[in-house]
Amino acid sequence: MSRLGIGIIGGGYMGKAHAAAYGSVGTLFETTLRPELEMVCATSISSAEKYQKNYGFKSATTDWKEVVNNPNIDAVVIASPQSTHCEIALAAFKNRKHVFCEKPLGASVEESRTMLTAAEASGMVHMTGFNYIRTPASQYARQLIVEGRIGDITWFRGEHTEDFLADPSIPTNWRTTGKSNGTMGDLAPHMINAARALVGPISSLTACVETVHANRPGGKVTNDDQAQMMCKFENGAQGHLFFSRVATGRKMGYAYEIHGTKGSIKFDQEDQNALHLYTIDSVEKERGFKKILTGPAHPDYKAFCQGPGHGTGYQDQIIIEANDFLRAIHEGRNIWPTFSEGMEVNRVVSAALDSSEKNIWVKIADY
Amino acid sequence: MSRLGIGIIGGGYMGKAHAAAYGSVGTLFETTLRPELEMVCATSISSAEKYQKNYGFKSATTDWKEVVNNPNIDAVVIASPQSTHCEIALAAFKNRKHVFCEKPLGASVEESRTMLTAAEASGMVHMTGFNYIRTPASQYARQLIVEGRIGDITWFRGEHTEDFLADPSIPTNWRTTGKSNGTMGDLAPHMINAARALVGPISSLTACVETVHANRPGGKVTNDDQAQMMCKFENGAQGHLFFSRVATGRKMGYAYEIHGTKGSIKFDQEDQNALHLYTIDSVEKERGFKKILTGPAHPDYKAFCQGPGHGTGYQDQIIIEANDFLRAIHEGRNIWPTFSEGMEVNRVVSAALDSSEKNIWVKIADY
Amino acid sequence: MSRLGIGIIGGGYMGKAHAAAYGSVGTLFETTLRPELEMVCATSISSAEKYQKNYGFKSATTDWKEVVNNPNIDAVVIASPQSTHCEIALAAFKNRKHVFCEKPLGASVEESRTMLTAAEASGMVHMTGFNYIRTPASQYARQLIVEGRIGDITWFRGEHTEDFLADPSIPTNWRTTGKSNGTMGDLAPHMINAARALVGPISSLTACVETVHANRPGGKVTNDDQAQMMCKFENGAQGHLFFSRVATGRKMGYAYEIHGTKGSIKFDQEDQNALHLYTIDSVEKERGFKKILTGPAHPDYKAFCQGPGHGTGYQDQIIIEANDFLRAIHEGRNIWPTFSEGMEVNRVVSAALDSSEKNIWVKIADY
Amino acid sequence: MSRLGIGIIGGGYMGKAHAAAYGSVGTLFETTLRPELEMVCATSISSAEKYQKNYGFKSATTDWKEVVNNPNIDAVVIASPQSTHCEIALAAFKNRKHVFCEKPLGASVEESRTMLTAAEASGMVHMTGFNYIRTPASQYARQLIVEGRIGDITWFRGEHTEDFLADPSIPTNWRTTGKSNGTMGDLAPHMINAARALVGPISSLTACVETVHANRPGGKVTNDDQAQMMCKFENGAQGHLFFSRVATGRKMGYAYEIHGTKGSIKFDQEDQNALHLYTIDSVEKERGFKKILTGPAHPDYKAFCQGPGHGTGYQDQIIIEANDFLRAIHEGRNIWPTFSEGMEVNRVVSAALDSSEKNIWVKIADY
Repeated sequence: MSRLGIGIIGGGYMGKAHAAAYGSVGTLFETTLRPELEMVCATSISSAEKYQKNYGFKSATTDWKEVVNNPNIDAVVIASPQSTHCEIALAAFKNRKHVFCEKPLGASVEESRTMLTAAEASGMVHMTGFNYIRTPASQYARQLIVEGRIGDITWFRGEHTEDFLADPSIPTNWRTTGKSNGTMGDLAPHMINAARALVGPISSLTACVETVHANRPGGKVTNDDQAQMMCKFENGAQGHLFFSRVATGRKMGYAYEIHGTKGSIKFDQEDQNALHLYTIDSVEKERGFKKILTGPAHPDYKAFCQGPGHGTGYQDQIIIEANDFLRAIHEGRNIWPTFSEGMEVNRVVSAALDSSEKNIWVKIADY
Repeated sequence: MSRLGIGIIGGGYMGKAHAAAYGSVGTLFETTLRPELEMVCATSISSAEKYQKNYGFKSATTDWKEVVNNPNIDAVVIASPQSTHCEIALAAFKNRKHVFCEKPLGASVEESRTMLTAAEASGMVHMTGFNYIRTPASQYARQLIVEGRIGDITWFRGEHTEDFLADPSIPTNWRTTGKSNGTMGDLAPHMINAARALVGPISSLTACVETVHANRPGGKVTNDDQAQMMCKFENGAQGHLFFSRVATGRKMGYAYEIHGTKGSIKFDQEDQNALHLYTIDSVEKERGFKKILTGPAHPDYKAFCQGPGHGTGYQDQIIIEANDFLRAIHEGRNIWPTFSEGMEVNRVVSAALDSSEKNIWVKIADY
Repeated sequence: MSRLGIGIIGGGYMGKAHAAAYGSVGTLFETTLRPELEMVCATSISSAEKYQKNYGFKSATTDWKEVVNNPNIDAVVIASPQSTHCEIALAAFKNRKHVFCEKPLGASVEESRTMLTAAEASGMVHMTGFNYIRTPASQYARQLIVEGRIGDITWFRGEHTEDFLADPSIPTNWRTTGKSNGTMGDLAPHMINAARALVGPISSLTACVETVHANRPGGKVTNDDQAQMMCKFENGAQGHLFFSRVATGRKMGYAYEIHGTKGSIKFDQEDQNALHLYTIDSVEKERGFKKILTGPAHPDYKAFCQGPGHGTGYQDQIIIEANDFLRAIHEGRNIWPTFSEGMEVNRVVSAALDSSEKNIWVKIADY
Repeated sequence: MSRLGIGIIGGGYMGKAHAAAYGSVGTLFETTLRPELEMVCATSISSAEKYQKNYGFKSATTDWKEVVNNPNIDAVVIASPQSTHCEIALAAFKNRKHVFCEKPLGASVEESRTMLTAAEASGMVHMTGFNYIRTPASQYARQLIVEGRIGDITWFRGEHTEDFLADPSIPTNWRTTGKSNGTMGDLAPHMINAARALVGPISSLTACVETVHANRPGGKVTNDDQAQMMCKFENGAQGHLFFSRVATGRKMGYAYEIHGTKGSIKFDQEDQNALHLYTIDSVEKERGFKKILTGPAHPDYKAFCQGPGHGTGYQDQIIIEANDFLRAIHEGRNIWPTFSEGMEVNRVVSAALDSSEKNIWVKIADY
């Protein structure tokens, strides 16, 4: 068993989630590599020191370069704003650090491509932070599809809907400006990743991106609130994706429904410990959607509990990511989703924004 | 209390439903007009006589003209194939019969327009058979929206999904040929009607209509299996509609979700006695979707039962239609949904088919 | 096809339900016997005449003897207060009428036994009105159990809960006085019937019957509000039954859960078109409760609709009862649930009341 | 910020859960005391060393006395078999350690009373491990009741049902022998705790405890499989509790339904992130159970995530316990549920076992 020094850049919401995950992942998954929280980087020294103390890091800094230069650090978690991802990642690879980067990967397809190229050239491990596809239920959904339990997929409907900006009287804030903070930048990547993971690559789409509440107390909203796209997958399936931060009543509406020739799957992250499966292999009068509660029979569940139905939560997804990151490093090979997936998701986002502007169908291959 | 002679053209699935409805509507709604089943028309004399006997009609015929000429008949229910709707309706109005016509109204926008013009010129009552919007739950949803309980609508997602042709090994049959038997002809009208009833007129759309299983034992499928459209409503809301008869696992998936600035509504016909309502007028920690079971406080429920939660079913929707038709005749005025609604739905269907062929956004005003 | 004259005694809630049912049962089930509504009996002549007109009877009376003496009447539906059931039924059998009697059958076990004896001696058809067990879902549950799909039953939990008297500020009314109007008289029979139908005879029990709100505006409440019992079935299963009319939030809480060695069943009348089935005959990771929507593959459904998931409602249960009553008469044999079932349910109610008073376990055989 | 040395006795299922919890609780809750995993005790040296390595302890032992004597240890977590709880706890208090003890507290009411007395005499912090009542949803339910949102409680139904021994072909094992491993010892304490936490003390009960599958491959089962009790609470509410490990299909069926004069609450641990609340303070047509997803507005949620609906899981309950234990130590005061609650739960279990043997109602005050 050997130690692995971890540096985290960005100490806010996601930085804390990762720090906490590294505190228990070793115990829960009984990992060979034991992570140690070396250094945290934040924008102000007071924040950085607070994070150091509260999250249990050995040191703190306001300069991310100190993290990527720290010889005790083997792996860097990038949880800072998207605009900084590319530069930090390139520097980290140069210094022979493994890199876990939050989604959306780069600020553009080009940036993501650059990051992927650097990652591959370095030979270091790279991973993108699509945490929602990591639940035991969604991993199990992927398994079922691979095993052919629902036959050929004919339809995929996915959405990522929340309501944190549904009230038009909420003033402008950091979320209402900047492309990467809009619905397409913030929410869409998760569900595009899910669509790709469950069905396969998207070949073409036509999208409609809009700002429902363009004016708020404080001024103009400069990014998108709500977006949808019709799409076609390379395997011939048709689909629809919807993203909204003004979906009144929806709190964590990462949800999908998949129709196949032999069965169907339904999932809603708001009840993340259940997968609904319909198959045609029973007599007609006994057909129905089965509500399968996740348990030790499903991927990554038993690290958290030996009993089925006891449930995992949001923080456990981050722990699952951490375990896979440690495993990848230990085994010296990349584990999905890598920077490649991050870049592919970027391409779909770019295609959708372009399609919406031009009101036409576009091919992903062109982005 | 006075009698009203009813003639039904078409004795199959829908003809039977209407015949049964007229047998109990008088008692359940304690109507002023008491319907009497006069004559049924079917394609073969053996069928017609079987329907006469089994459904309790006084006479039977294979010639629909006998129905519209029958002096004991005051009102005609058209439940025959769509291609016959226009001719029968025109003859019925000419003979001063009230007309209830199943959806889809005419075989084209032009036919529907002709039917509406004839209806209005005749001064007789006309109604289109959109039964699903008649449930107490969906009527209540309309009420809530009108009352402003969910504020301004920002998003509408509707689907009508079933799986009766999901299995690719089902041979070709009458349902796999003929535009009006396809998904756009058969299922879409119901949900387009719902979208219009709940949100308002659609202004533009872009659609994608496809035949998922183009080849079946027996030959080629010549109509559509699955279709979707992104649309914009006149009031500015955005939406998505989806129709499928290959939606494995879905039996009566007439379902919608509506987001507004002050609340949201969710409904699924598979649990037709519940409406899910979210409103923002409670403290944050008490917010959630309320599952409201229909009861005597909701439209048209108490005719069926005095206790809430006891539930209504499919056949009760047809009874509610029958009651409204009788009321309209008694009160000498039309009650929604008239032929006008039937025609408007036709226009959206036509626009969608055209859009799908051309892969472009189209305006409803152009159809 | 021949006519069957129907007389209904009691024109209120249940009388109307039965009158409406006889108006459509012939069409829906395409019955051989065609019912005709001959005479209705109510307590005042104005009510009786109103019912005659509104429900379509040929004549009206305030004297139930006129109904049982009416030569045009072949079958009598008793929907009057429980205290009158015995006398009317005995007179009806004497006059060779078939009798459908609402639950609870007699005002005591002795009365019910007398009624059953008279019924059997007369050779006429007799049936007790346990409508809730008639849904396609509950009939299907019975089928599954008979077929052994859930193995040996080890546990049954049933409840019939409503909230029409949950508010303590509701004044005393007819429901708050009279044993047969209390929870044990009014609600318990339905669920006791269900327990017997699904699991089998109860052998012993210990009960706890109480009046939660003993004082209301208007005076003292003299019957029970809430009751529970632990029980053992003859086949060794253990169970619990709960009845309440003060169950805030529950509208039609006729619900049960049954555990067996090979599977389990869950049902709630508030979503009466779904049966939840769990079986152990799949691999562990695919186990879960299946939500089976009723459809033409399930008992008595297809009379109402050819498509699955379209749903039946409260009134349809009464129609199913009417069909079985007509079938029994036509076939000259009794169909479950007869007066025998009505009497057996009475015995369990009596045993429970006695047990609650004495705070002891009692054997059903002693009642 | 100061360190707190933790010793854990028992390295199995619960020992691991606590070890992992102490690895992240400091970060998630940003605690003042920072726990350090000092020593783990297991029955064999190989297990103990494996736990030390896998869970990150500094040392390992097979002698629990080394833990309670270890000067670096401030607090002891007892996760060993119930028969050892009392002796360990007494020794720990003697050595001035704070003690967290898993449920069921002592092997008898007497033992629990002795443990409580020792705890109070020592002045050290004591806590019992009732983790399920710690979910944000159940804590919120308690809040709602205290705030009077559902009025006076009239009914409580609780169950803890799982199916890990539902299959009669499972051979005898450690779970099928020993009172504390039976349903009353293993599952009942959690739900009795919930009943007490939500409604208040139980005053009397009558129970029925049984062994459904008395014979298994391997021999006789010597403890109980399934048990139920009817009970009365000191505040006048009536209730029913059910416990089963043969509840086919139920995985984590810790579920309750509470009726009050102004509202009702429903909860099921299998969907632990939702609480269902019905209140009468809306117009009749808008009444229904609200599905409230837990979020930052609810107790202890925001330590895990800032967004509502993102969810917590089983392991998070253990972290919440750990935080309360640390808080109690830091603040020098006990936090519910202490050993007192553990003992009170023991009393109800003892009363129920006695009642079942004698088939009578018993008073908790007599135990």
